Amino acid sequence: MIEKVFDLLGEKNYKDLKDLLAEENPADIAEIISELDENDAILVFRLLTKDVGAEVFAFMDKDTHIDILENINEEEISYLMNNLFMDDTVDIISELPANYVTRILKNIPEDRRKLINHFLQYPEDTAGSIMTIEYMDLKLGMTVKEAIDRVKQFAVKKETVNNCYLLDEKRKLIGEVTLKDLILAEDIELVNNIANEDVIKANTMTDTAEIAQMFTKYAILSLPVVDAENRLVGIITVDDVMELIEEETSEEMGRMTGTAPLENPYMKTSAFKLAKNRIIWLLVLMIGATISQLIIGKYEDFLTSYVVLAGFMPMLMDTGGNTGSQTVTLIVRGLAINEIKASDVFKVLLKEVNVALLIGFSLALANFLKLFYLQNISLKVSLTVSLTLIFTVLISNISGAILPFVARNAKMDPAVSVSPLITTIVDAFAILAYFMIARLLLGF
Amino acid sequence: MIEKVFDLLGEKNYKDLKDLLAEENPADIAEIISELDENDAILVFRLLTKDVGAEVFAFMDKDTHIDILENINEEEISYLMNNLFMDDTVDIISELPANYVTRILKNIPEDRRKLINHFLQYPEDTAGSIMTIEYMDLKLGMTVKEAIDRVKQFAVKKETVNNCYLLDEKRKLIGEVTLKDLILAEDIELVNNIANEDVIKANTMTDTAEIAQMFTKYAILSLPVVDAENRLVGIITVDDVMELIEEETSEEMGRMTGTAPLENPYMKTSAFKLAKNRIIWLLVLMIGATISQLIIGKYEDFLTSYVVLAGFMPMLMDTGGNTGSQTVTLIVRGLAINEIKASDVFKVLLKEVNVALLIGFSLALANFLKLFYLQNISLKVSLTVSLTLIFTVLISNISGAILPFVARNAKMDPAVSVSPLITTIVDAFAILAYFMIARLLLGF
Repeated sequence: MIEKVFDLLGEKNYKDLKDLLAEENPADIAEIISELDENDAILVFRLLTKDVGAEVFAFMDKDTHIDILENINEEEISYLMNNLFMDDTVDIISELPANYVTRILKNIPEDRRKLINHFLQYPEDTAGSIMTIEYMDLKLGMTVKEAIDRVKQFAVKKETVNNCYLLDEKRKLIGEVTLKDLILAEDIELVNNIANEDVIKANTMTDTAEIAQMFTKYAILSLPVVDAENRLVGIITVDDVMELIEEETSEEMGRMTGTAPLENPYMKTSAFKLAKNRIIWLLVLMIGATISQLIIGKYEDFLTSYVVLAGFMPMLMDTGGNTGSQTVTLIVRGLAINEIKASDVFKVLLKEVNVALLIGFSLALANFLKLFYLQNISLKVSLTVSLTLIFTVLISNISGAILPFVARNAKMDPAVSVSPLITTIVDAFAILAYFMIARLLLGF
Repeated sequence: MIEKVFDLLGEKNYKDLKDLLAEENPADIAEIISELDENDAILVFRLLTKDVGAEVFAFMDKDTHIDILENINEEEISYLMNNLFMDDTVDIISELPANYVTRILKNIPEDRRKLINHFLQYPEDTAGSIMTIEYMDLKLGMTVKEAIDRVKQFAVKKETVNNCYLLDEKRKLIGEVTLKDLILAEDIELVNNIANEDVIKANTMTDTAEIAQMFTKYAILSLPVVDAENRLVGIITVDDVMELIEEETSEEMGRMTGTAPLENPYMKTSAFKLAKNRIIWLLVLMIGATISQLIIGKYEDFLTSYVVLAGFMPMLMDTGGNTGSQTVTLIVRGLAINEIKASDVFKVLLKEVNVALLIGFSLALANFLKLFYLQNISLKVSLTVSLTLIFTVLISNISGAILPFVARNAKMDPAVSVSPLITTIVDAFAILAYFMIARLLLGF
């Protein structure tokens, strides 16, 4: 597809290019445009009809938005901005540098501009910041026939009409009526009678993570957002939530390894920016390792006598780190999807101690057999290493089980705060245990 | 809510309980039932009307399914199974132990049973295994009026009617017509004229990860699935995809730390099962650490003379491991969402080398200042550790950048195979570099 576009651009065959684009999905066109250089991108964008152009614009990434905005005139900006849904408009504006925002807002009629400014004030990660106002509202007392006529009249301007919302004269949310309900009901029926009044709803400050959970749990397509007086102020549709979930996943994975969420895709982020995002975490961990260093320093004389012990430090620390991060992954995940509750802390702890004993003894046995029989390490050293292994796994699992709960209680994000701490704690305890056990078994 | 249910169960006040349940969402009722003991679960389930019961059943987890199935009679099973959508039926059956499956299939009419068996044969993680057959089909040549009448007649039995599918006489997929399109069109218009013919579609063997991407990319609510002859065989709806994405996220995170995907929620999985899932990965890593041990063994005499060097091993290995896993996270993620392509390997490598140099020099500088000025470590040792740090970060980023591509090329899951390898490689190289640099600077 992209090759064909390149070919037609090379041949300056804009007629065929226009026909080709007319058959493509807006999401695909946006992707193609993002891969072209600025001049070609503008050229292709201008070949689209105005309506398709607005749709394609909504699918583009930030950099392409800037490329396009730099090259189109005020009238074109005005058309674009008045033909995007409110949630897309707010989304695009909130990502752009200030000078572009000024230029865009200048080209938007005052009432809409006020609304946009209002929406921009909702904190990130709240329902208010991702909702849109183009919902289909029905009035209390309407008949089904009247409701369908209203849908016919306004559907084009709405983000969805599959779910319509029944409001009273004060715009309070009374219930939900699906388009299917309307089709199946008799024309003279009152919409009040067919509305579902137990509507799943959010308020403007509901956290987006919670919203994603509501969509998954209740298998809904659209979620009404109300203010403190239960007045409908917007809706969130499932397509925006899918995007949200994808972003959250990527953020969550990023947080666990200290790679701060990328505002831009990896390939478009500079090495400098990537390094900046990653370095704090690495620095904190590097300094945290000082504790291990000091412990080893304390046992320096002992280590000189038994320098063979140094060889097993990597294995002990790695195993501790790995089993700790396994536990953290399981618990953070469980807490995030509410499968594990705050009150489960002792159950989780008990379970992880059991897991640690099972894993610890198995690994220790395997390790002992390997060292003593395969590598001909002395009995006492083999025993020291194997016993330390059990202790290390135990301390890793215990810290891995408790710390996510502590972080959650302290209202910190477990994924961010726990991993660095675990490494530091486990390393220090593993090494301390190692030398203590060694001294006990080997003497000095 | 759950407390209220407990109270009413305690008071044996089943009338109020029934009223309370009647107002609840099926997803919430399923959650409540899963927290009751077996007897109460059955009691509450029986208080539901038959139709709500079937809906609630679809939302339950595996263990609750078993509890219910053990306590209801053949007739009730038959009612349940004939009132679930095909995708839910297949999903439930594929999770149950064999004896339950036999009992369920016995209570399903032959034609439906054949279909279920057919569906069960699609490999896991393919479109065929998650699609459902309750789609709304329209025939070529129908008028809009006829189409709406058809929707009215069959809507109740369909998973969705928001998207209807236009088929020719051989059931080949011609196009898609939304319910909104039907409402907006004139009664006498032919559906052929209003159908969207560029339908986004999948085939039965399309991978579920790809399907999730299609939903996000194209912002669609429903995806038709066709066979090799373009005949419509099923649809996948967005609610099932949301569930899928949640599962995939948790699997992906699990794979990166070797905690095999849990079939059951954490709290319901035994310590033995958890340990079993985790141990292989730990064992492999433990054995991998032998390489580091052997390298340290080689330098044992040297280490005896400079035992102070042992103290910095944890910091070097941790930093290497951390920066490596940061790179892996970014690249695996980028590859998974197709933002990074196989052909980008050299660009990625170059970028990660740049990132490594930026991070490496910064960390080395910070480390040198800390060791030399704050901890009064000798100049040569401070230099040795700091130089090794640069090398370690470099090797971590290089392996972290290349290995995901290699794994992908070998058709292995990068998230599973790469992390253990990285730890082993980075540890070994870091330690080797450490001693080589030390010998150079400190002499022997």
